[in-house]
Amino acid sequence: MVDSRFHSEAGQFTLEQILEMTGAKLHGSGDLARLFYGVSTLNNGGEKEVTFLENRRYLKDFRTSKAGACLVPPAFANQAPDGMAVLITAIPRRSYAKLARLFHPAEIAPIGVHPTAVVDPTARLGNQVAIGPGAVIGAEAVLGDSAWIEANAVIGEAVRIGEGTRIGVGAVVSHALIGARCFIYPGARIGQPGFGFEMDAGGTFLIPQLGRAIIEDDVEVGANTAIDRGSNADTVIGQGSMIDNLVQIGHNVVLGRGCIVVSQVGISGSTRLGDRVVIAGKVGIAGHLEIGSDVQVAAMSGVNRSLPGGGSYGGVPAIPVRKWRRQISRLKKLGQNKPTA
Amino acid sequence: MVDSRFHSEAGQFTLEQILEMTGAKLHGSGDLARLFYGVSTLNNGGEKEVTFLENRRYLKDFRTSKAGACLVPPAFANQAPDGMAVLITAIPRRSYAKLARLFHPAEIAPIGVHPTAVVDPTARLGNQVAIGPGAVIGAEAVLGDSAWIEANAVIGEAVRIGEGTRIGVGAVVSHALIGARCFIYPGARIGQPGFGFEMDAGGTFLIPQLGRAIIEDDVEVGANTAIDRGSNADTVIGQGSMIDNLVQIGHNVVLGRGCIVVSQVGISGSTRLGDRVVIAGKVGIAGHLEIGSDVQVAAMSGVNRSLPGGGSYGGVPAIPVRKWRRQISRLKKLGQNKPTA
Amino acid sequence: MVDSRFHSEAGQFTLEQILEMTGAKLHGSGDLARLFYGVSTLNNGGEKEVTFLENRRYLKDFRTSKAGACLVPPAFANQAPDGMAVLITAIPRRSYAKLARLFHPAEIAPIGVHPTAVVDPTARLGNQVAIGPGAVIGAEAVLGDSAWIEANAVIGEAVRIGEGTRIGVGAVVSHALIGARCFIYPGARIGQPGFGFEMDAGGTFLIPQLGRAIIEDDVEVGANTAIDRGSNADTVIGQGSMIDNLVQIGHNVVLGRGCIVVSQVGISGSTRLGDRVVIAGKVGIAGHLEIGSDVQVAAMSGVNRSLPGGGSYGGVPAIPVRKWRRQISRLKKLGQNKPTA
Repeated sequence: MVDSRFHSEAGQFTLEQILEMTGAKLHGSGDLARLFYGVSTLNNGGEKEVTFLENRRYLKDFRTSKAGACLVPPAFANQAPDGMAVLITAIPRRSYAKLARLFHPAEIAPIGVHPTAVVDPTARLGNQVAIGPGAVIGAEAVLGDSAWIEANAVIGEAVRIGEGTRIGVGAVVSHALIGARCFIYPGARIGQPGFGFEMDAGGTFLIPQLGRAIIEDDVEVGANTAIDRGSNADTVIGQGSMIDNLVQIGHNVVLGRGCIVVSQVGISGSTRLGDRVVIAGKVGIAGHLEIGSDVQVAAMSGVNRSLPGGGSYGGVPAIPVRKWRRQISRLKKLGQNKPTA
Repeated sequence: MVDSRFHSEAGQFTLEQILEMTGAKLHGSGDLARLFYGVSTLNNGGEKEVTFLENRRYLKDFRTSKAGACLVPPAFANQAPDGMAVLITAIPRRSYAKLARLFHPAEIAPIGVHPTAVVDPTARLGNQVAIGPGAVIGAEAVLGDSAWIEANAVIGEAVRIGEGTRIGVGAVVSHALIGARCFIYPGARIGQPGFGFEMDAGGTFLIPQLGRAIIEDDVEVGANTAIDRGSNADTVIGQGSMIDNLVQIGHNVVLGRGCIVVSQVGISGSTRLGDRVVIAGKVGIAGHLEIGSDVQVAAMSGVNRSLPGGGSYGGVPAIPVRKWRRQISRLKKLGQNKPTA
Repeated sequence: MVDSRFHSEAGQFTLEQILEMTGAKLHGSGDLARLFYGVSTLNNGGEKEVTFLENRRYLKDFRTSKAGACLVPPAFANQAPDGMAVLITAIPRRSYAKLARLFHPAEIAPIGVHPTAVVDPTARLGNQVAIGPGAVIGAEAVLGDSAWIEANAVIGEAVRIGEGTRIGVGAVVSHALIGARCFIYPGARIGQPGFGFEMDAGGTFLIPQLGRAIIEDDVEVGANTAIDRGSNADTVIGQGSMIDNLVQIGHNVVLGRGCIVVSQVGISGSTRLGDRVVIAGKVGIAGHLEIGSDVQVAAMSGVNRSLPGGGSYGGVPAIPVRKWRRQISRLKKLGQNKPTA
């Protein structure tokens, strides 16, 4: 069911190859020479496709699925529809992800510099780089091996782009050091000046924004997301962090490793997050706070004070998630009953 | 009062022509040969302009308006100022919209391919297409007749753009099929990979995003809005839907026909909306939900469960709008009185 | 500690020069010939750098700072660490900002028109303009002296750009008059049509958007922010206003002078703000409201009615900030106690 106009195809694999590649075990019997051509969801697959089931919630779809094979945890194997090859694994989703990439290899960068790209003669390009139409590479910029700068993207002066990093269409990077194997999505803005002014009795004045934006290795930055450079210290996105679309990261913000920041979140200036912090969609975090490692914040919450590591928070202002849930339930009652006063 | 540097002018019309074009009826007497040159608001119009009144709220502005003519519902006709030609109609705003377009015709696409555009030789271009400076059209892309790709916009490989569709300046479309008569505003991002990773005991892993973004006919997508492609199924925006600026639409989201999504809304992955759903500004909707047709959600609400068709909801989490209003009013009391406990 | 690859350096200044430039007074004794090379934060500075302390909150950092000199208010002077030159001033932050600019002069526009830029022959360019690679300047556009249009930015037909105004990389401006000394950040969208349709019994219809976007002098517009043009009247951003990243400004919105609009705020159509209004992050303001001068709205609030000048508001819907705080505190109690009913 994957549209081959948009996603390349590696060809077909036998059931035997699929079992080998995923480490799954065949439930019951099956034709090891049976051919499969791609992956699918439970609902949109046919006999030539492999799908997966991980969440009990989709058991009903599993029972009626027309997919030819399905990666499933042992507990659900007996509920498979007739004719389906049942592939037992403790990690169905991860196995599906691996298989999907094998059936549909990642896009390959069109190596070379497009004649309409504008590359400053002082820029240094690694081996096998790809620079698309209309892209601009500033003076003294350094692109690592296999860096991929897509069409109309603009890399500012002296910026470093790590090995294998891909800068999406129309993205802008300035005053920044970007690590290896990052993917900056289309329209992301990295390194512009932060909201840098102050007011005193004499009125408003601008503060020069003299820091950088540091994006460590293996980071993804979503479409149209904005990451301001530091005002004097640096803005830092830690290794392996995933940032969704339309997120705002203010100047001097520091994210640890492996943080997850969902769409439309805003993190105000100089706030620091530990490692593996998960911020759900549309959350706002005030400036100059410390958020400990492994904190989780529920969607649409507003964090206005520092939080120790490890807890879950929700609400505006954010409080421990249990208290917040109780608050919501009481509040609901409040909307139903006659007032007590 | 319309600035002719920015909006083209078709010339003048007589009162008689205006009555004919709108189907309105002249209240009292008036010079049918009187000439008008454009449209205006109640406040900024002069004797050569036509304005309209629909909402009772602006009656005061109507009484003091200097506009030469006004489209009004019958009930307000008697309150017109002296000298104003009063044009009676049951649909003043719609008549105004029609007249505005007649006085100021829509922008005309500059047909042809700009010499700085980069069009892959395998792309197929319909008749009368316009491709602006710096635009990029990928391999095997197909542009329908009268498609208009503005400056620096980038159309990815194999993308379909329907007849008469306009892709705004700097917009990016990939892995997508776009219908006819759509308008994608500047900076919109359509078809990039969704926030596609999962975590298990083995850590974080990426899930290949193998779906498409399908935009049906007559859709508008606002400036800097992001619509991710599906992960395996497709992301779909139904016919006639209107999406405002800075909206986030996650992977596999499906909108029915005629939905309205106001600025800064976020809809999480795999959520499905019926037809004519209206989502006001800044609303967040969680993933994997079903929102029925004709549902309306008040601004700044957070929807965390599926909603049957037809109702109005508000709050975080969103509840039926009546209960929400009562909650707000009780809460207000709570902020004023001494605590009851 | 400033990275000279990204920020230019003017050289060194003596302590005597620094005292002269800032008007600060030396506390105790010090070597007036001592040389300084740049500015720093309290934490990341060394003996060759000047830092500042204004907020009591950072006193601890001050006491352990290794910076060679620090601008401080008189009250804190005695707590300086040994070896630090203490520069007494009532306005440390403002003095720091001045000094930072002297050590690190602002970026200089690369004057001239890049050969890959597309400038319509009817456009009029002032003296000393800079037009970057891939930028597009439409017919009849007018650029004031020293205007700077960065790479891949697109200026629409007839647009006016004032003296010394900088249009960031990939920004789009159409149907607009931009004043002098503005800075429009990368990816901002100014002048596209507003969310301009209406519904009546006959269905949905588009309303031609015939107004303009007017940006007065000395305005900053953040990265990926969207400012729609007026529908018939104009959208106006008053002189000296500061707008952060990812903000949405609807059609016909009017901001007075010196307003501050923080990231991810949304202001709906036809709402008017007075002067010096401060809207904190993620606030939503409904349409057709009047917000008086000097109003302040707390982060994540939702304003659904007009507000007289001078007050502070918070909450959804926004109420006077004191009442809102009381509400939060009562609500917190509600989440802790047994229900009263």
